[in-house]
Amino acid sequence: MALNWTYSVMAHETKSSAIREILKITERPDVINFAGGLPAPELFPDRHLLKACTKVLDEYPGKALQYSLTLGVLPLRKTIAERLTQKGCSGLTEENICITSGSQQGLDLTGRVFLDKGSAIICENPTYLGAIQAFSFHNPQYIGVDMDEEGMMVDQVEEKIKKFKPRFIYVVSNFQNPTGRTLSLERRKQLIKLAQEYYIPVIDDNPYGDLRYVGEHLPSLKSLGGELVIELGTCSKIVSPGLRIGWIAATKEMMNMVERMKQGADLHTNTFAQYVLYEYIQAGNLDRHIQLIIDSYSQRRAIMIKALKEYFPENIKWTEPGGGLFLWVELPEGISATALLELAVKQQKVAYVPGKPFYPYEDKDNTLRLNFSNAGHDMIIEGIKRLGKVFKENTA
Amino acid sequence: MALNWTYSVMAHETKSSAIREILKITERPDVINFAGGLPAPELFPDRHLLKACTKVLDEYPGKALQYSLTLGVLPLRKTIAERLTQKGCSGLTEENICITSGSQQGLDLTGRVFLDKGSAIICENPTYLGAIQAFSFHNPQYIGVDMDEEGMMVDQVEEKIKKFKPRFIYVVSNFQNPTGRTLSLERRKQLIKLAQEYYIPVIDDNPYGDLRYVGEHLPSLKSLGGELVIELGTCSKIVSPGLRIGWIAATKEMMNMVERMKQGADLHTNTFAQYVLYEYIQAGNLDRHIQLIIDSYSQRRAIMIKALKEYFPENIKWTEPGGGLFLWVELPEGISATALLELAVKQQKVAYVPGKPFYPYEDKDNTLRLNFSNAGHDMIIEGIKRLGKVFKENTA
Repeated sequence: MALNWTYSVMAHETKSSAIREILKITERPDVINFAGGLPAPELFPDRHLLKACTKVLDEYPGKALQYSLTLGVLPLRKTIAERLTQKGCSGLTEENICITSGSQQGLDLTGRVFLDKGSAIICENPTYLGAIQAFSFHNPQYIGVDMDEEGMMVDQVEEKIKKFKPRFIYVVSNFQNPTGRTLSLERRKQLIKLAQEYYIPVIDDNPYGDLRYVGEHLPSLKSLGGELVIELGTCSKIVSPGLRIGWIAATKEMMNMVERMKQGADLHTNTFAQYVLYEYIQAGNLDRHIQLIIDSYSQRRAIMIKALKEYFPENIKWTEPGGGLFLWVELPEGISATALLELAVKQQKVAYVPGKPFYPYEDKDNTLRLNFSNAGHDMIIEGIKRLGKVFKENTA
Repeated sequence: MALNWTYSVMAHETKSSAIREILKITERPDVINFAGGLPAPELFPDRHLLKACTKVLDEYPGKALQYSLTLGVLPLRKTIAERLTQKGCSGLTEENICITSGSQQGLDLTGRVFLDKGSAIICENPTYLGAIQAFSFHNPQYIGVDMDEEGMMVDQVEEKIKKFKPRFIYVVSNFQNPTGRTLSLERRKQLIKLAQEYYIPVIDDNPYGDLRYVGEHLPSLKSLGGELVIELGTCSKIVSPGLRIGWIAATKEMMNMVERMKQGADLHTNTFAQYVLYEYIQAGNLDRHIQLIIDSYSQRRAIMIKALKEYFPENIKWTEPGGGLFLWVELPEGISATALLELAVKQQKVAYVPGKPFYPYEDKDNTLRLNFSNAGHDMIIEGIKRLGKVFKENTA
């Protein structure tokens, strides 16, 4: 039967994520996959999580399997508030925390709270693809700010605030996705000063902040900017992405708005998973596990950088971020990373993500993102060798 | 600091759910709570779910804790498709199923797929509050159709289709929330005929279909209407609402749209919970558990009806639905169920949900919904006795 239904404008305009589409192609086990942002599955703390499942289902099944509060279960919200307080944020209690169905929902909910059609957003250029997807439901105007080694070039921001009156400034301050770059301390202070002066909320999407392998942790934007900063967090990179637990830390006023949006979106996040994560953290596992991940990923990062130096041709540049999951590669001008991906997958069975979809409006296609957290050591070396071959043959 | 942020129109207009607000008040353990739609927590299958958690984390932790497909993990989608096929739906495979973060997300995603500002929706009057919340993000126009004992009065629908050109018809065909009423077989056929004639999608929100205590199951709208019907399902009432797993069954074309919307909304539903539910069903637990719930709830229903006959004054009417979780009570005209709720909670420590928020545009306040699945036998009798007292004193 040919159905002739009328879909929404949004449904017609929303495109599928390039990354998700590529992930589908590269699920074949013989492809070495530097696409995606997948944690190393062999590091998942399944034994400790099973212990937490057992405790929850032995001790309070009636509560853990029941409907729960829209903003999330209290003990987990309290735990998140405490961890943020330990990192220098002040004045936070469980009332400032909403547990979200992954950090992606944090983006969706903040988008719903702030954006109307045509609203301006200041963001890094390039910026996180998932944020573009969530915000674009509202058809906003993206005002990109260029980046260098110190992250967003904040001295370009004031003029854009004056001109476009943005609803918020969106940044990934630590080990940004896709570039891996971190906003420097000086620029953090500068950004907060602007936010204070113009009363602009700053959304700091911070999934990678715990994963630093080189240098010292910088104070978070929220610890510097207090109520002006809405911080998005997640357990995806430090425990498990499959649990889909993230959080928003913001003012109580903002929580009221977020709560109403979340009621309509999914009522509340998985109660059981929230309690399992709470018991997992309560048992003292999280900090030990973060250290284990740091040890492992910093090795993988070093191995990938070494392989890049060995196998990539000299006309290709890349970042060497001190944390997170990604390196960012720049091909010579005029070379299409999207076109080369097809060759890489077909001829060499190796995959990456082209940078193009990370630019909200620019048509820049000579960049790509490499993930170093998912593959093992040998696969990293072999994959970079294969990629080097594709690039040598096609970028000269 | 007084923040002076500009929020979206949506954020200003979205009201908090009256039910959720009342649930907050009635969380005190000394209140007998007929509000909410909470399953009986003592019936949750925690032992079988723990077995499933153990199997999943012992046998495939790397897969179960990882990112997964936006539409949901394949074995669970296959299982859902098979169960729907057993119930008479034809042509369904895993490609027709999207796993959602609870049925509420099914409503949110179908709203996103179909609705623009001002789009017309035909629905029952009263209709499910959660649907109003999800759809209202888009500021649609609700076209209510009156109900009687056989559900939506379908003979009013054709005229409304012609006049308002709705994007879809939304119904809760089995044991409707809030009225408990079920669409009769004849009206189901009549509705599908109209859907075929005008190519209008029918969204059948069906969380209670398995929970029939009296009479025979009717063929589902999807089994009668095939591709014209989008069925929303959930494990909330038959396993656990805390797991937040629901599903959408629809055409592949619709799945493409839903997938793109879900990517931006929350990437995918909790992988671990999906596999746990899959293993739980695979072990043959679900049908046995549904029978256990049916036995228990049908007793509670009978006890509540008996108590209503004994303790409610004669000027009050109620429905006696053959399934689901709710009875629907009508007070004499001019009596406000909202005002009496305050008395009931304060003076008698018993709570219900007023019917008012279930009417998308009408200001009708003499109805209320009673849940019979959550409280034990003695509490049901005691609660109805107390409510009877409030109503006797205030409706004469």
